[in-house]
Amino acid sequence: MMDLRVELTKNPKEKPQGNLGFGKYFTDHMFVMDYSPENGWYNAAIVPFGPIEVSPACMCLHYGQEVFEGMKAYRNSEGGVQLFRPEENFKRLNVSNDRMCIPKFDEAFLLDALMKLVEIDQEWVPREEGASLYIRPFIIGTEPSLGAHSSTHFKFLIIMSPSGAYYETGLAPVKIYVETKYVRAVTGGTGFAKTAGNYAASMKAQDVAAEEGYSQVLWLDGVERKYVEEVGAMNVFFKLGDEIVTPALDGSILSGITRKSVVDILKSWGMNVQERMLSIDELVQAYKDGKLEEAWGTGTAAVISPIGELKYGDLVMEINQNQIGPISQKLYDTLTGIQWGKIEDTFGWVKKVD
Amino acid sequence: MMDLRVELTKNPKEKPQGNLGFGKYFTDHMFVMDYSPENGWYNAAIVPFGPIEVSPACMCLHYGQEVFEGMKAYRNSEGGVQLFRPEENFKRLNVSNDRMCIPKFDEAFLLDALMKLVEIDQEWVPREEGASLYIRPFIIGTEPSLGAHSSTHFKFLIIMSPSGAYYETGLAPVKIYVETKYVRAVTGGTGFAKTAGNYAASMKAQDVAAEEGYSQVLWLDGVERKYVEEVGAMNVFFKLGDEIVTPALDGSILSGITRKSVVDILKSWGMNVQERMLSIDELVQAYKDGKLEEAWGTGTAAVISPIGELKYGDLVMEINQNQIGPISQKLYDTLTGIQWGKIEDTFGWVKKVD
Ligand SMILES: Cc1ncc(COP(=O)(O)O)c(C=O)c1O
Ligand SMILES: Cc1ncc(COP(=O)(O)O)c(C=O)c1O
Repeated sequence: MMDLRVELTKNPKEKPQGNLGFGKYFTDHMFVMDYSPENGWYNAAIVPFGPIEVSPACMCLHYGQEVFEGMKAYRNSEGGVQLFRPEENFKRLNVSNDRMCIPKFDEAFLLDALMKLVEIDQEWVPREEGASLYIRPFIIGTEPSLGAHSSTHFKFLIIMSPSGAYYETGLAPVKIYVETKYVRAVTGGTGFAKTAGNYAASMKAQDVAAEEGYSQVLWLDGVERKYVEEVGAMNVFFKLGDEIVTPALDGSILSGITRKSVVDILKSWGMNVQERMLSIDELVQAYKDGKLEEAWGTGTAAVISPIGELKYGDLVMEINQNQIGPISQKLYDTLTGIQWGKIEDTFGWVKKVD
Repeated sequence: MMDLRVELTKNPKEKPQGNLGFGKYFTDHMFVMDYSPENGWYNAAIVPFGPIEVSPACMCLHYGQEVFEGMKAYRNSEGGVQLFRPEENFKRLNVSNDRMCIPKFDEAFLLDALMKLVEIDQEWVPREEGASLYIRPFIIGTEPSLGAHSSTHFKFLIIMSPSGAYYETGLAPVKIYVETKYVRAVTGGTGFAKTAGNYAASMKAQDVAAEEGYSQVLWLDGVERKYVEEVGAMNVFFKLGDEIVTPALDGSILSGITRKSVVDILKSWGMNVQERMLSIDELVQAYKDGKLEEAWGTGTAAVISPIGELKYGDLVMEINQNQIGPISQKLYDTLTGIQWGKIEDTFGWVKKVD
């Protein structure tokens, strides 16, 4: 296995106080690793967190060859630190790499390096209720050249940010705008990869929805503008009568780790959960028939985000009287319970840091 | 108007000798300008070319909020330096900005700043036949924060690279692979913007085509996988009998400045040029009927790129016996003639540097 050099900071920073927000503060250390055609991935190190110097011709600043991940470290009830399915994030990152022409890396080595990094910066894992340490692995193309082809050189980094509770005043339903003009991703494109351009493409719709008082958009497929895909940067679930439906992974949807976990939890509860195509028309019909009982988004940041209102053209669909539904609540309690080590991890999803 | 600070380098670099390649060497200076919500665009300056320092949390490294342009400065026959329709590039950059939630800038100011920059580095404009100075304006989101929303801060840069002739051994036809699996852009997406993610999304198809011995892919639309869009990072034209067709700008195609110029030149020659939807089936039928007489790509890099072969599934369509067609050749001579100041610029497209 590759060597992991460790260089500890001589100037530990003061930990931020009060409202942490999201992704604003960074810990004392970061992980870095380089790739060159001659060496493959090499030069793996944990070093003091700090700015990086790049050529203004660095390819990642021009052609968006970049992939990333998002996960969290949680302070558990014994005061220890634990991660939630981190191996899934590295697996997904390699899937993104394949789509984006970035060389694959050794997932086991990265997992070890991450555990070491979290261990070193463990005092940065917040102790406040609901707060956690957000972890951002990412890879950028670094060749200083303007040819519009895949970069020859890459840099892998992991940075970590102590972040506040997503719901500052507790779990609350959100209002969602069904997007009919802008498209996030399309089959044959990069929707299933966690790559920079997908997020840049989403900003405009997000801004327009926000102006109209909606917190996220519900994306429809780019081909027929008919099938439900994701909600903001989350996967989405609907309870339609006795069936719980989440869109099938069709190539334009990110395969969320929270989504996968929610499917497993629902199945363990004996519920009828289906991964299938779901059209907006079917959703509207279910609403009209009184069968659209609950809806929620799933993602690492919010865990579960109950949907209280869906606006589709002129039709405003209120869901569960704009209240948190029983399944959303139970899923939230179960998942956060496992993540923060408050309830037993019967699925074996938690990885403790020494 | 804003001030433009000029700080000249104290260490001018040696100019590269021999094969310049594309986008590998950079001139002595670059343009930089910042954006903050309080100041708008400010701090415009021409400074020595050099690395930039960014936070590893810099948004452009994560969410691809980036737009760019590509144009050239040419050494004309009197030994002077001239640009080709640079105002069109800044106009298009602001169109890209609008889609990508980046604040617009003053095009007239930027054009002045660019002229000044080229003037300062004019000795870098190559004198070899076919070589030119490639100019890359670009804007990146610089807020050091991981929230997946539009950046609050931005940096505008212009870097310049002396680059060799695109066709080292003279104009030559290329082999093109009609892409049916991967999609570059879709209506409602970002295809009409010159933004990072579009290029990252294209790399995989490009790699696959290259493995099969094709130099570029012909992109089909992302919805029906039927209509012709672009070829590699160029617009595309087909001569079908007496009609010359280029795909209409439908929102997923970049509005090329070479494309626009070619349309104007063809019209000035009294030719029947149409901007309309063109299906791959129509193209195949025209080929079978012996009416697919010529095809070529258009773009700043290659100017005109004659297409000698199109492969669609199992069908290999040879065009004009894999030879440069008369219109491709005439367009190439006319456009390069205007760009390098060898023929009269009757369209008023050239802008001379003092
Ligand atoms: C586009 C998108 N969809 C869905 C998700 C949810 O994935 P996960 O549950 O792995 O966080 C994310 C990431 O958070 C995302 O960026
Ligand atoms: C995707 C794409 N299409 C077409 C073009 C051609 O545009 P222009 O003629 O302005 O160079 C470019 C840029 O060169 C491009 O990147």
